[in-house]
Amino acid sequence: MNTSAPARVLIHGASGRMGRALLRLAAERGDLVVVAAVSARGAALAEAGAVPVLPASRLAEVPAFDVAVDFSLPEAFDPLLALCRERGAALVSGTTGLSGGQYSALDAAAARIAVLWAPNFSLGVAVLTELVRQAAAALPGWDADIVEAHHIHKKDAPSGTALHLGAAVEAGRGRAPHYASLRTGDIVGEHTVQLAGPGERLELVHRATNRDIFARGALEAALRMAGRGPGRVGLGALLLGGSAR
Amino acid sequence: MNTSAPARVLIHGASGRMGRALLRLAAERGDLVVVAAVSARGAALAEAGAVPVLPASRLAEVPAFDVAVDFSLPEAFDPLLALCRERGAALVSGTTGLSGGQYSALDAAAARIAVLWAPNFSLGVAVLTELVRQAAAALPGWDADIVEAHHIHKKDAPSGTALHLGAAVEAGRGRAPHYASLRTGDIVGEHTVQLAGPGERLELVHRATNRDIFARGALEAALRMAGRGPGRVGLGALLLGGSAR
Amino acid sequence: MNTSAPARVLIHGASGRMGRALLRLAAERGDLVVVAAVSARGAALAEAGAVPVLPASRLAEVPAFDVAVDFSLPEAFDPLLALCRERGAALVSGTTGLSGGQYSALDAAAARIAVLWAPNFSLGVAVLTELVRQAAAALPGWDADIVEAHHIHKKDAPSGTALHLGAAVEAGRGRAPHYASLRTGDIVGEHTVQLAGPGERLELVHRATNRDIFARGALEAALRMAGRGPGRVGLGALLLGGSAR
Amino acid sequence: MNTSAPARVLIHGASGRMGRALLRLAAERGDLVVVAAVSARGAALAEAGAVPVLPASRLAEVPAFDVAVDFSLPEAFDPLLALCRERGAALVSGTTGLSGGQYSALDAAAARIAVLWAPNFSLGVAVLTELVRQAAAALPGWDADIVEAHHIHKKDAPSGTALHLGAAVEAGRGRAPHYASLRTGDIVGEHTVQLAGPGERLELVHRATNRDIFARGALEAALRMAGRGPGRVGLGALLLGGSAR
Repeated sequence: MNTSAPARVLIHGASGRMGRALLRLAAERGDLVVVAAVSARGAALAEAGAVPVLPASRLAEVPAFDVAVDFSLPEAFDPLLALCRERGAALVSGTTGLSGGQYSALDAAAARIAVLWAPNFSLGVAVLTELVRQAAAALPGWDADIVEAHHIHKKDAPSGTALHLGAAVEAGRGRAPHYASLRTGDIVGEHTVQLAGPGERLELVHRATNRDIFARGALEAALRMAGRGPGRVGLGALLLGGSAR
Repeated sequence: MNTSAPARVLIHGASGRMGRALLRLAAERGDLVVVAAVSARGAALAEAGAVPVLPASRLAEVPAFDVAVDFSLPEAFDPLLALCRERGAALVSGTTGLSGGQYSALDAAAARIAVLWAPNFSLGVAVLTELVRQAAAALPGWDADIVEAHHIHKKDAPSGTALHLGAAVEAGRGRAPHYASLRTGDIVGEHTVQLAGPGERLELVHRATNRDIFARGALEAALRMAGRGPGRVGLGALLLGGSAR
Repeated sequence: MNTSAPARVLIHGASGRMGRALLRLAAERGDLVVVAAVSARGAALAEAGAVPVLPASRLAEVPAFDVAVDFSLPEAFDPLLALCRERGAALVSGTTGLSGGQYSALDAAAARIAVLWAPNFSLGVAVLTELVRQAAAALPGWDADIVEAHHIHKKDAPSGTALHLGAAVEAGRGRAPHYASLRTGDIVGEHTVQLAGPGERLELVHRATNRDIFARGALEAALRMAGRGPGRVGLGALLLGGSAR
Repeated sequence: MNTSAPARVLIHGASGRMGRALLRLAAERGDLVVVAAVSARGAALAEAGAVPVLPASRLAEVPAFDVAVDFSLPEAFDPLLALCRERGAALVSGTTGLSGGQYSALDAAAARIAVLWAPNFSLGVAVLTELVRQAAAALPGWDADIVEAHHIHKKDAPSGTALHLGAAVEAGRGRAPHYASLRTGDIVGEHTVQLAGPGERLELVHRATNRDIFARGALEAALRMAGRGPGRVGLGALLLGGSAR
């Protein structure tokens, strides 16, 4: 982070919604530089600016990079992982739908390079999840509730993030929390974890107001992964350092 | 905590507001038993029930105990610390106004017994402080604000707890937060630490509704300190385990 | 309120929980004076201090009063209403379980005296209910949710107050809100009405931290009813003046 | 609002930020139709779509309309007001910097047409302001605080909206509130009015997440003004009906 040279980043899966947001937001930063973007067919992308966009078939030709940021598809994943191992570069991936074998390959690669896979790249949610696990463990006798609010078009309830936070509560104190869900207005996403004991309580809240937070979080993760030694790490642990899993 | 026998507790400074609350609340619990209470002159205390109340002059006569809970005065502190060392019992103290020499003696005693001193025994505040330090360290570029609200009779602003939380923010990210204070109604105490980044934010809130939380927290600390090995520990670390200072 | 003489108050149903709280809190105020307390059997009450306590059988003997505050039982209600009419005094009642005939008698009495009956005397809830009705009417296309939180011993959900607020939402915009209930810790009572539209929202929140609010609210109502002209009025309308029902 | 024909709207000041937002958002609605847009020089506007854009010099040529929505400049105001009077159409204006004479002309025109001028067209803020005035009047003895939070680029503090809410508090209870301001992250705008009494309190909160709320509010106001009888009305009163100023 405090090296003089900006981190060299490869964007993999560049034509998707996340890929284009990554290109757009990376262009605003001085602490990293996108050396190439790879998309399935290599079609031109307005967000790429002067960054070269290569088709997946020419992946091997990408220039030197410190970290790959991958939001692609399972069928494009294996060649990228192989490339990162070969180049000794870190890998940050949010690609969903990977097979069990692909997750195992990630773990195996972690013996050689730094790897991070996460289902959600909000920095705030990653930190909150870790705080919630610790608080629930520290106050095992307190009651726990999770209230989440999202826009009316969201179909699933509780949200995946609420269930993720609930798993952290359960990991901490051995019992699941109670959930409540609101579907209202155009709320991007709000999650409140409330822990209540006699005469006092804690409310731990995350509010998202912009969907760019996922791409921002992935770039922040890439910056911290560049130059990191081998091993697999979660987003919460990457952010919180040695004190978290 | 899961031993069959309840922890044996000595209440030291029993006639003060905290001492009487400790006696009252301890009587409701099955996981600890108060073996004696000590107050300056040993006057009768309604809250003591069947618990013997001894004057400070007869401190040496108290029966066997696992942990002393001390909310007394600096002049009563040294004999108690000596007794705990002699008996090999843990010490939990919230006595304020100790001298530098007395704090040093606490540290020295920690080579032999488990000792904990804290300025505030709210469990929620102790956990929150630790969470805030970690969150500020994980998100160093985010803005930080602390808003606190108390009843209109509270004179100092920001509150001591707000400053304590602010110190945790500064320890985490190297910069102090902005403070705002409300003095309104009969609010016992509310503290909100807000960390705001692009498109998302965290609000970490503690609400107190009852002043018994300090005595409850001290008893909970006593329970965890009973049987603990030598060393000095803070309330946050005691609650959060190895992951915290 | 700004007359020089304090309002003369009769406490009816003085031995119940509300009656005793009314006596205790009235003693702290300079703007009203309790001239007598009436309870079923006229037993002595510590909270009455120097106030004479009469049995119901001697109701007719109470000295002159401006307003009666009644938290008794349906069987004690009729004689009190008759007395208020006879004396030309106002009546504030929170007695539950009245029969249809008794409510009709209240309405009939309102031709002669000022009468107020309410199921809940929290000033904040009464004001909130009126605000919610107006906001829902002003913003009929917005989504509406009510979230309430109470201690874990509360059995019914949603709370009666939440349903009352929901009725105000429905009165305002013609559709009921969505409800969520938390049962956690020792929360006295919290109600949030959230109205959400595109890009903005309102959160209207009431927090209770002390059960004395009901007796305080009844005394405040009594003060405003003393000297008021004939007619039946609700607590919200009494507080909000001409702008509310 | 429930007439069969959509309201016919003239957008005046169409090339400014508000004007373009009005055109963009109006195109999504079925309950109103923009018959023409007027800007200083009549330059083409992408947001206008098929709507004719006229220069101010040809204002007299605009087709029939029910209501004009004006976010222009003081120098363009007088001809528009004259046109509305002549056509018997309503006027909704958010143009700032009008002279005292222009405000007087607005009042004079109100004898013939419906007119509304407001400094802020957020529906939620307009409703909140009215609620706050009523609540402060109903609970004159409670403490009042206003906390507002905005992005770090906002220079003035307290915000204009906070001062507007504070004026409503003062109008209600005769005393100004206490203010606190946070400048943090990229918060669009949040305002909390807290009223605290013994044992209970109200928190009345507005959260804005999108700057389109001002144009949406102006269109909603236009819809309600179309067909309304002569008179000047504020946004709060328009939304809340007869119960508000």
